[in-house]
Amino acid sequence: MSNKINVFSPSTIANVGCGYDVLGFALDGIGEYMEVSSRSDGELVIEKIEGFDLPKDPKVNVATIAAQALLDALDSQQGFSFSMKKNINPGSGLGTSASSSAGAVFAVNELLGKPFSPMELVSFAMQGEKALSNVAHADNVAPNLLGGFTLVRSYIPLEVLQLPVPKDLYVAIVHPQIEVKTTDAKQMLKKQVDLGVAVQQWGNVGGLVSGLYESDYNLIGRSMEDFIVEPIRKILIPRYDEVKQEALNEGALGCSIAGSGPSIFAFCEGEEVAEKIKNKMQSMYDEIGVLAYSYLSKVGLEGVKKV
Amino acid sequence: MSNKINVFSPSTIANVGCGYDVLGFALDGIGEYMEVSSRSDGELVIEKIEGFDLPKDPKVNVATIAAQALLDALDSQQGFSFSMKKNINPGSGLGTSASSSAGAVFAVNELLGKPFSPMELVSFAMQGEKALSNVAHADNVAPNLLGGFTLVRSYIPLEVLQLPVPKDLYVAIVHPQIEVKTTDAKQMLKKQVDLGVAVQQWGNVGGLVSGLYESDYNLIGRSMEDFIVEPIRKILIPRYDEVKQEALNEGALGCSIAGSGPSIFAFCEGEEVAEKIKNKMQSMYDEIGVLAYSYLSKVGLEGVKKV
Repeated sequence: MSNKINVFSPSTIANVGCGYDVLGFALDGIGEYMEVSSRSDGELVIEKIEGFDLPKDPKVNVATIAAQALLDALDSQQGFSFSMKKNINPGSGLGTSASSSAGAVFAVNELLGKPFSPMELVSFAMQGEKALSNVAHADNVAPNLLGGFTLVRSYIPLEVLQLPVPKDLYVAIVHPQIEVKTTDAKQMLKKQVDLGVAVQQWGNVGGLVSGLYESDYNLIGRSMEDFIVEPIRKILIPRYDEVKQEALNEGALGCSIAGSGPSIFAFCEGEEVAEKIKNKMQSMYDEIGVLAYSYLSKVGLEGVKKV
Repeated sequence: MSNKINVFSPSTIANVGCGYDVLGFALDGIGEYMEVSSRSDGELVIEKIEGFDLPKDPKVNVATIAAQALLDALDSQQGFSFSMKKNINPGSGLGTSASSSAGAVFAVNELLGKPFSPMELVSFAMQGEKALSNVAHADNVAPNLLGGFTLVRSYIPLEVLQLPVPKDLYVAIVHPQIEVKTTDAKQMLKKQVDLGVAVQQWGNVGGLVSGLYESDYNLIGRSMEDFIVEPIRKILIPRYDEVKQEALNEGALGCSIAGSGPSIFAFCEGEEVAEKIKNKMQSMYDEIGVLAYSYLSKVGLEGVKKV
């Protein structure tokens, strides 16, 4: 049994327009690094967090909370040290907390000799999400641990489906540097929705799943339309409507808010159009002097992995 | 151009548990017959309706209303006579009004030399549904005209997807002879639903679509669970909970209300278990002296057709 591991934990995009709290996918090559090593004193210790100022208290940091949930399930007293290199700031909408939770449970599971399957790790990583937003949502941690495109069919009992990923599905992302807390973004939503609107939404969820199976890129784009969450959350994102419209004008299949925002993502067929849209979205924030970072990625087939 | 046609228009089951107003499928060999012939006086006339007492006024009968919608789109003054043989009484939940609307537009389209595609016919048949329930829903007429399993991804604009049909997917149906009007069944539903409940529902819609693509029979069954419509509509159906539980005990994949009821259907893997469940459901109404008819069917791959 090795006593140290380095992992790469991808960023993820949840909701995917229509699929609030159920759909999500992993990014390819965008994410964070974590080093985890066993320690003999039975403690969980966060030694270092590079990149952003996050709490090191193991009772507060989502990585150690998630790792503790795994250890509790095994009734294990094993201790671990964690060092993280975070590349994307918290509150981005790109599943940075999920990256930490999923990275931690994956690493600890590896060091313990893999007592749990990736699907089982999802439920431990969800405890990290719960600590952060009061809701044990799985739409980020599932693609984070399993890779690809996932659907949380059911929360109780937890059931996550892996969906096919069309080979030319690219993602252009822009992240204006405005923090949106998932808790706040969730509280903004209305507790009730019109039945007729819910019907439109689940028609689209069905359409998006069908589009993934059929590699029907335009169907994927049409199905992303979100009648429930986007109209409310977009208010927090400067220039949202314009950025989305420009992305569609430039040939994006569809465009929506990444997770609870403020990042915006556009699905594109092929790398060339995705590159063009990424640059366009970036320039729209440059124009108004809002600091923004932009990314280009395929849907990542791999989840968190050893590096 | 022929001036007379006989068609068979299948019965259909809409909603399919989780997919209120969007999912539906055709039955195989269960449905109604219609004879349509051209007439030279420009009138739409219902000459005969065998089986059940339905209005012959062409402004009221859904078949002629739907046919008129098609003729209006062509600006055609052609007249037609309709004779119908209905095998299932109205208010069954098995899409009997859709069978009439879809049968009529299919027949008229054939006699006019097929100016419209089956997908276009869906929108005309929806006008028959609208006349009956004030809502132009497509979840019955779509599988009726297209066959198989369909998803109404969007109503405006209308977009219907055809989903794969696993080869051993059978349906056991029991129809207790209590009329439930679609209008009444729709009015019972709450206008608003909890967001959390809607999330569960669209998780299931996604799961059901995935189950059809994967031919994963158990996933199809699990995904049928309906948190919104069934709890309210089942009140109108005597012994609903018991019948459902017995069907599940006997090995049904899932069990729910057909359309707006009172028919109950169970999905089964294979004919043998479906036959057993059909008989069980029948016997449960026989026991309490409620007249009921029961049916066994595959998911029908064919929609309305010439006979």
